[in-house]
Amino acid sequence: MKTISILGASGYAGGEILRILINHPGVKIKQVTSRQFAGQSVSLVHPNLRKLTDLIFIHPDQLESCDVLFVALPNGASMDLMTGLSKKAKKIIDLGADFRLHKSHVFESWYKKKHTSPDLLNKFVYGIAELHRKEIAKSSFIACAGCEATVSILALYPLVKHHLIEPNIIIDAKMSSSQAGIKPTFSSHHPERAGSVRSYMPTGHRHTAEIIQELSPFIKNISVAISATALDMVRGLLVTIHTVPKKNITEKDVWKAYRSEYEDEQFIRIVKELQGIYRYPEPKLLQGTNFCDIGFEMDTKTNRLVVIAAIDNLVKGTAGQAVQALNIILGIPEKTGLEFPGLHPI
Amino acid sequence: MKTISILGASGYAGGEILRILINHPGVKIKQVTSRQFAGQSVSLVHPNLRKLTDLIFIHPDQLESCDVLFVALPNGASMDLMTGLSKKAKKIIDLGADFRLHKSHVFESWYKKKHTSPDLLNKFVYGIAELHRKEIAKSSFIACAGCEATVSILALYPLVKHHLIEPNIIIDAKMSSSQAGIKPTFSSHHPERAGSVRSYMPTGHRHTAEIIQELSPFIKNISVAISATALDMVRGLLVTIHTVPKKNITEKDVWKAYRSEYEDEQFIRIVKELQGIYRYPEPKLLQGTNFCDIGFEMDTKTNRLVVIAAIDNLVKGTAGQAVQALNIILGIPEKTGLEFPGLHPI
Amino acid sequence: MKTISILGASGYAGGEILRILINHPGVKIKQVTSRQFAGQSVSLVHPNLRKLTDLIFIHPDQLESCDVLFVALPNGASMDLMTGLSKKAKKIIDLGADFRLHKSHVFESWYKKKHTSPDLLNKFVYGIAELHRKEIAKSSFIACAGCEATVSILALYPLVKHHLIEPNIIIDAKMSSSQAGIKPTFSSHHPERAGSVRSYMPTGHRHTAEIIQELSPFIKNISVAISATALDMVRGLLVTIHTVPKKNITEKDVWKAYRSEYEDEQFIRIVKELQGIYRYPEPKLLQGTNFCDIGFEMDTKTNRLVVIAAIDNLVKGTAGQAVQALNIILGIPEKTGLEFPGLHPI
Amino acid sequence: MKTISILGASGYAGGEILRILINHPGVKIKQVTSRQFAGQSVSLVHPNLRKLTDLIFIHPDQLESCDVLFVALPNGASMDLMTGLSKKAKKIIDLGADFRLHKSHVFESWYKKKHTSPDLLNKFVYGIAELHRKEIAKSSFIACAGCEATVSILALYPLVKHHLIEPNIIIDAKMSSSQAGIKPTFSSHHPERAGSVRSYMPTGHRHTAEIIQELSPFIKNISVAISATALDMVRGLLVTIHTVPKKNITEKDVWKAYRSEYEDEQFIRIVKELQGIYRYPEPKLLQGTNFCDIGFEMDTKTNRLVVIAAIDNLVKGTAGQAVQALNIILGIPEKTGLEFPGLHPI
Repeated sequence: MKTISILGASGYAGGEILRILINHPGVKIKQVTSRQFAGQSVSLVHPNLRKLTDLIFIHPDQLESCDVLFVALPNGASMDLMTGLSKKAKKIIDLGADFRLHKSHVFESWYKKKHTSPDLLNKFVYGIAELHRKEIAKSSFIACAGCEATVSILALYPLVKHHLIEPNIIIDAKMSSSQAGIKPTFSSHHPERAGSVRSYMPTGHRHTAEIIQELSPFIKNISVAISATALDMVRGLLVTIHTVPKKNITEKDVWKAYRSEYEDEQFIRIVKELQGIYRYPEPKLLQGTNFCDIGFEMDTKTNRLVVIAAIDNLVKGTAGQAVQALNIILGIPEKTGLEFPGLHPI
Repeated sequence: MKTISILGASGYAGGEILRILINHPGVKIKQVTSRQFAGQSVSLVHPNLRKLTDLIFIHPDQLESCDVLFVALPNGASMDLMTGLSKKAKKIIDLGADFRLHKSHVFESWYKKKHTSPDLLNKFVYGIAELHRKEIAKSSFIACAGCEATVSILALYPLVKHHLIEPNIIIDAKMSSSQAGIKPTFSSHHPERAGSVRSYMPTGHRHTAEIIQELSPFIKNISVAISATALDMVRGLLVTIHTVPKKNITEKDVWKAYRSEYEDEQFIRIVKELQGIYRYPEPKLLQGTNFCDIGFEMDTKTNRLVVIAAIDNLVKGTAGQAVQALNIILGIPEKTGLEFPGLHPI
Repeated sequence: MKTISILGASGYAGGEILRILINHPGVKIKQVTSRQFAGQSVSLVHPNLRKLTDLIFIHPDQLESCDVLFVALPNGASMDLMTGLSKKAKKIIDLGADFRLHKSHVFESWYKKKHTSPDLLNKFVYGIAELHRKEIAKSSFIACAGCEATVSILALYPLVKHHLIEPNIIIDAKMSSSQAGIKPTFSSHHPERAGSVRSYMPTGHRHTAEIIQELSPFIKNISVAISATALDMVRGLLVTIHTVPKKNITEKDVWKAYRSEYEDEQFIRIVKELQGIYRYPEPKLLQGTNFCDIGFEMDTKTNRLVVIAAIDNLVKGTAGQAVQALNIILGIPEKTGLEFPGLHPI
Repeated sequence: MKTISILGASGYAGGEILRILINHPGVKIKQVTSRQFAGQSVSLVHPNLRKLTDLIFIHPDQLESCDVLFVALPNGASMDLMTGLSKKAKKIIDLGADFRLHKSHVFESWYKKKHTSPDLLNKFVYGIAELHRKEIAKSSFIACAGCEATVSILALYPLVKHHLIEPNIIIDAKMSSSQAGIKPTFSSHHPERAGSVRSYMPTGHRHTAEIIQELSPFIKNISVAISATALDMVRGLLVTIHTVPKKNITEKDVWKAYRSEYEDEQFIRIVKELQGIYRYPEPKLLQGTNFCDIGFEMDTKTNRLVVIAAIDNLVKGTAGQAVQALNIILGIPEKTGLEFPGLHPI
């Protein structure tokens, strides 16, 4: 039994790791930290865990060593701490943005701040298991992908790898409110946020950099444009990806590419039904699950291949992805702790 | 390993039993029936089960014998079939309303139809484990409680058993749309149903009869009045129960009553916090779980004891309650298959 | 053409007065104040008014005299200013709680703070036109009722006046998020507030005092108990009022009472249909309107009279009520500016 | 005072025309038809109109002549009746799809049915006032645009007219449930439809044909690809339009194009703010209004011009557009009856 701790366990990502790990057969939760809630019960902040855990938040200064350390801090916070943290745990899984991008200048151009630990960048493996399973198994440092990047990369990876699409990619992302984190703002104020279909970032989404990084080995001159719209939902993320298929590409080629890459993947499902009302991926069905559902439709009239993909941003997009990496590190089945099938109706 | 089958598996209750049992270590799902979808994949109707089961619906006429049979038919359907079904399985767990009430005249006065199997009524045990655990273990026939009755009975049972409240009870129930089942109607049409706070049954709710039946052994002259309001939610049920405490009853007495009845119950939590925003039960946190959360507040000014209780109507109120009964029958831990802790945020 | 100004125009109540008055034929909006947004366009804060008004917020210190002054400040703020304000305008319509209760000790016991202008209390008329139309016409000071008090008083007034019910009244109130105002808090944070059915005040709601004040002239020993539950809606308020009818009272008596009091009221509708899905009042239909819809159901089995009533908390419950008072003051039709019929579907 | 009648007044479009016209100073509503509800009160079906109208539905066979006839029938129904209807009224405003497309073969290829009145097609004017105001004034036949086409055409028209964009246009449309009409289906069943982000038509949306028809006079080789996603909202429509600006086009050029076309348009607002949370169009603010809000953002990195536009699909997208045409026909201000500014918060 390995010990794990969570640095920054009072946020949504930290809470979700806790939810998944309290019954996980391969690990024991040693410590969970929170500056604000140190000394208080975990279930005060994560009320779904009432009666299921006796854990008390500790102050981060009290963090002891453990086997695997999850770091769930706001963007920009972990890069200052990473050298110190690396002495506390043999394996570190970072859920923030600081170590996702391999090059400091790319980080700096998108996040508009200096990277304070550029030398550590090349030690980190990008945390999407379906692309980097082997490196994850061996590495001491894992940087989990951004939620928007996760779903987009998983949807596009087989297409670029199999040379099926042109390099100009438009991602129309439908986002939920939990992505903005646990801190209240005027834009998250219920009377303002409820019912909204808010084009909060029509251009310039930071996850663009991750997508380009992960896909560019397979395609030249890639251009990725994200437009993000915030919906009245708490969890879930759907992307509608508008691509241009290369000449003579057929639906069969697309099926083949997805099958060849994902046939053995337990968390990826190709959803493209001819009947029923759930013919394409839908995020509400994925709440609490680690699935990434992917569907597509070709339109020969306009020469488009529309790819639709969905995840739970807090699970496959954050905490579930982190636990999947943990399971790989532990050498146990990747599904461990991630078996929840999702609800219907919901 | 015991075999189970589900009669009427394409509805919401049937789908929820399936969701819980596909990974259940103590049973094997043998057959699932649906007239409408016979021959089709289970995941067409229950899209959350994609890639998780290969089950195909069979026509009910093809039902073979099994160890435990779940009956998830519309109200009024199982009483005609029960004699025949009892030859197919040693244990039957009925989720409909037909066998919940012990007396046929009570059934007939609330459901406005003749009971066609009155002789079977006294063979059925009412399915709330917290009240009837021992009988469930021994009986061949279990009638699961209505969702509204379940949460109300669990909230009130300790209070009446310990003689803390007067017999006039008002239940203000906040209901979700899944309670009305899978069949579309004009009242379930999204443009009409969304955003509604609809007083669809201010008086005369049928579950009243079950509540009276279960509580009257402990209190004389009980009067139960339910007012039901439908909200814009798919799953979940909250009751605000307005009661009058007996003379000199204090908050401490209430705590004592709940503790003495529920201390060892894994699925019941007393939720009454002094801080945070989740100070009382809230149904959204219970989606997918088998918990019944109960809280209360005393108001000495108006001499009231307000009890607040919440469940997921499809789990503790239906399918989870049925699986809890199954676990009792199998002699395995009651939590088996019902471990999902619920999500936050959601 | 009379001039009006609004003190505190950047909140939800102030914005709603603006929305109603920008096209009002009887008044000219002179000044609107906001400390925080002084110098900025009104439509920055109230984006529904884009292209419809050129108004700029001024700092409250710049307030000049006008004919009618609307005061839309947080509770507790207007009592300190009222003496000064009374020199700026012949008529003052206060939307806050400070001057609703006629006795300072009642105010102090519910609001837990000293009243700083107790001598002004008896100059204020309580602003519900249906009860106090004549006094409103004559008075210089109007205190608009709280939203929860408005709907409850309008629902109960004919019943107590006509001696139809016993004095023990239970109000189960279903509330929306706009009632808590424009300031973000953790409890209004979308991931926490969305989907909630939150029993935020099971006992002790402050509006109780107003209801008792207004109804006690007609009934002895009145006891009012409010339990308030917050729903996932932005606007709207529904009360389910549980009352005990006096002996031999019939449905006909109830109809008669409502008709005799409200027959000529343009903003009150008795909603009690035998068919359709909108058989009782429903708040979503009232969004943006000044209606108070009232329905009821008698249950002879449990000897109850259940009254259901709904309003838009920001219109009939706040700003619309204020404009209705304004119209009375101006001697013009009460409906002026309040003609919006509401939307369906919505 | 002109008389108007509505053929098919029990649907959502018909109800919305009624809502707008009951207080309209220029017309008298003569007759409203419904097969299903003939003889019943209008407010049974449109409960927002309670106490505001005494109208009773008549059977369509009883339709008499009137000045202006609104036809609000399901797609495919009006083409069979149009010749007959044209004898009942001097002016006909059709809200269905039958006469929007000028060429029968285009209609037939998108709607997969034969057009039964192809000779009437060229008598109809396409009903978007901002493009065809003068023809509307003169014509006897007006075909109102589809909601999705309306918002897309209004957003794109200045850009193509001023030669600012390349001809490949991708429209990512976010749709509401009222668009599918008043008839319940399984896909509109609340437990299935609530919470959905459903890619129901990733390719092949019929409104494509209208957009091409209206824009092709201004741009060569236009290609329009719509992907439509259904959200959990009842009213409202937002499009995110992904376009490629021509070489050297700047934001200033875009501003100029919009201003030059829409400066004097009362129902079009360019929404592009530098501060606040409502920086781009948002459909929730437009509920009940006739506005079309348009915003945009340029991304030089990916050479994109993203246009965001929103309407209330039942108002500017249907009934409001029809009343705007009516006002043009009557020669009265276009805003008559369409003054509702919309609500905030909502």
